Amino acid sequence: MSDQYSAVGYSSTSIGMGSKPAVLVVDWQLAFTDPRFELGGLARLHAARDNTAGLLATARARGIPVAACFTAYCSSKDMPLWKVNAVRKEFFYGHECTAMDPKIFHESDFTYCKNAPSMFFQTPLITWLVRQNIDTLFITGCTTSGCVRATIVDGFSFGFRVQVVADCCGDAEEGPHNDTLRDVGRRYADVIDRATAERHFASAGTAVGAADQKA
Amino acid sequence: MSDQYSAVGYSSTSIGMGSKPAVLVVDWQLAFTDPRFELGGLARLHAARDNTAGLLATARARGIPVAACFTAYCSSKDMPLWKVNAVRKEFFYGHECTAMDPKIFHESDFTYCKNAPSMFFQTPLITWLVRQNIDTLFITGCTTSGCVRATIVDGFSFGFRVQVVADCCGDAEEGPHNDTLRDVGRRYADVIDRATAERHFASAGTAVGAADQKA
Amino acid sequence: MSDQYSAVGYSSTSIGMGSKPAVLVVDWQLAFTDPRFELGGLARLHAARDNTAGLLATARARGIPVAACFTAYCSSKDMPLWKVNAVRKEFFYGHECTAMDPKIFHESDFTYCKNAPSMFFQTPLITWLVRQNIDTLFITGCTTSGCVRATIVDGFSFGFRVQVVADCCGDAEEGPHNDTLRDVGRRYADVIDRATAERHFASAGTAVGAADQKA
Amino acid sequence: MSDQYSAVGYSSTSIGMGSKPAVLVVDWQLAFTDPRFELGGLARLHAARDNTAGLLATARARGIPVAACFTAYCSSKDMPLWKVNAVRKEFFYGHECTAMDPKIFHESDFTYCKNAPSMFFQTPLITWLVRQNIDTLFITGCTTSGCVRATIVDGFSFGFRVQVVADCCGDAEEGPHNDTLRDVGRRYADVIDRATAERHFASAGTAVGAADQKA
Repeated sequence: MSDQYSAVGYSSTSIGMGSKPAVLVVDWQLAFTDPRFELGGLARLHAARDNTAGLLATARARGIPVAACFTAYCSSKDMPLWKVNAVRKEFFYGHECTAMDPKIFHESDFTYCKNAPSMFFQTPLITWLVRQNIDTLFITGCTTSGCVRATIVDGFSFGFRVQVVADCCGDAEEGPHNDTLRDVGRRYADVIDRATAERHFASAGTAVGAADQKA
Repeated sequence: MSDQYSAVGYSSTSIGMGSKPAVLVVDWQLAFTDPRFELGGLARLHAARDNTAGLLATARARGIPVAACFTAYCSSKDMPLWKVNAVRKEFFYGHECTAMDPKIFHESDFTYCKNAPSMFFQTPLITWLVRQNIDTLFITGCTTSGCVRATIVDGFSFGFRVQVVADCCGDAEEGPHNDTLRDVGRRYADVIDRATAERHFASAGTAVGAADQKA
Repeated sequence: MSDQYSAVGYSSTSIGMGSKPAVLVVDWQLAFTDPRFELGGLARLHAARDNTAGLLATARARGIPVAACFTAYCSSKDMPLWKVNAVRKEFFYGHECTAMDPKIFHESDFTYCKNAPSMFFQTPLITWLVRQNIDTLFITGCTTSGCVRATIVDGFSFGFRVQVVADCCGDAEEGPHNDTLRDVGRRYADVIDRATAERHFASAGTAVGAADQKA
Repeated sequence: MSDQYSAVGYSSTSIGMGSKPAVLVVDWQLAFTDPRFELGGLARLHAARDNTAGLLATARARGIPVAACFTAYCSSKDMPLWKVNAVRKEFFYGHECTAMDPKIFHESDFTYCKNAPSMFFQTPLITWLVRQNIDTLFITGCTTSGCVRATIVDGFSFGFRVQVVADCCGDAEEGPHNDTLRDVGRRYADVIDRATAERHFASAGTAVGAADQKA
């Protein structure tokens, strides 16, 4: 690329994959996938949700750990100051919009509630990762330019190898989706597709089985 | 706007300013402002650094607390897996590129070392903010689409009112700078300019003085 | 005291109370208060639970915010390596032992799930506190030498004024309860009783009402 | 033991050691080991410091990673509300009391500044541990009932196997030292001695070497 970033040394290496992968699944809850809800009718999100469901089936069959989150609050007092109407009005404990999408949910996953954009921000995710010696994160979910991006930055910050699975991430429009992949791909993560992730899961299966025995 | 985001309720309110502001200053270290270094020759960053220096003079005169950070590591072992060449090669404790820009540094500020994109990630910043009862953050620094953005997301996540001072934030190119302001302005923060921030500092001065007595 | 600690400057000041208090309630869930469960038959805990219930009634009447937590996990994978049998065997999402004690629960409180000893460790508590400009924490719950102590240390670390309400904290035996109050009272917190806390709530009521309007 | 704790299932298992150990070294800075300073003349701390120095020599020879911290602040504004006189008066960036003890410091270690009791609280330690796939922590330092204890609780909370090296931890008096080992040994950690740790380092050496190649 002939841009200012690559000219000064951004994008100067790749991250690569380690031996202990996990899949992170950001916010595939009904609020974003069920058209009854204000944010639930965006076609790009439905397509990425379907891709994620396929990726997760492969991961589970290979014994790759999966962590999935939804966003919900007790009241406005524990909620950051969101400018998104649906979050302020409906994302409360027990509201139907906080239920996981049935194509995504599986009882063997670690499914938990978060309350900020990042899946890591003040959540037990880091403990779950440490307990299983995970070194590589495959990140999926919605929206790419919001909660997915925040999760990428935190996964990187904690020291993990981060792989963003582009076709398993969805956003309202193509522009911010691509802008995000461009920005994080220069600094923090490799941007891959679902097929690449699934090929890696096939090769990593055995190592993950060994880690499982510890947990 | 006639985009998909505003159509489903993004950008549906503004954040506003509280009574106890602080200014956060991201990474105005020599690595980004001194042309001797690989990342140090980008003109947009120099302009934003100069604007930040002006804003800080106003803030300090009004008694508004200022926190400034630089990024540095002990070795590659405590460093996230950066794709930016200069960070991997030179951002180590004591290296000249980690010194604060002299137009920014002031001994009355809280100046500290961080090791991830966000000024909040595993740093004492949250304690400094709680100790002073801060409720509103004015965010400046570089780069807009990297460490500034990560700091915006974390400030929002901790529950603060976030104001991004657009002309005090710099990036290598205009595109990612504007993309970031667009994305965070829809969800997490108000995007303002330096003049607006300085007008608020004038009105907030007294309240900050009272908070100071506690600390 | 003529001990080695006070001789070298421990216990050399008191913390005092600010203008925006909140009450923190650690783990008054059925596991610790219902004799059907392995940890549920300890008399000292029942007495402290009753004192806490009284304190909370006063706090709520005065508009003082209350945050209460319980401990629960999705599976052994997100659980730290506990040496306590009941936690390993029964503290799972939805298990009856994770329900809040009915003398403690109130729908106006912020009630949430934690997964480590401290109420702060990777939980939304800090956001709830920042959103309400809280400066002083009154800490209650069980067990004093375990999760209460961890919560005291984290509340102190975040920069809050910490008041430990001794007769609202319970432990299996008197020794570790007192050892904890001794250790934290030297370093991090003031140790008070319920009557002292309630007197302060009476005087702080108005200020809390004002904070509430913001949230 | 015929106490109330063991009767209800505390101390019901042991933690054990994994394959990737690291040594954590809490606060062996001159403030606690040089008699010129208020906290620096306590004999029990000197003995534990000497034991730690021996343990670290063994660890380094075996390639076991070592992280060491000291406590220091920019000003009173980023400092929690300590009741310990020396911390409030002298623990500032650059003060001689914040220098590492020369028997402990080694340039190959990860040595960094913390600002709360726990070595983990808002510090880069977790990133350093994740980057090296560490699963087991051997904890040393001072004081046992203060910063060492807080570090034990956080290491446990993040999901690591925690081994407390009792004769490498020091406190002003024997009582609080032993109380701490009793409390954490029931819940969070195994309590071992230096000889046991060193025997494990001998067997773990090869695995650590392999981890090193990744970082």
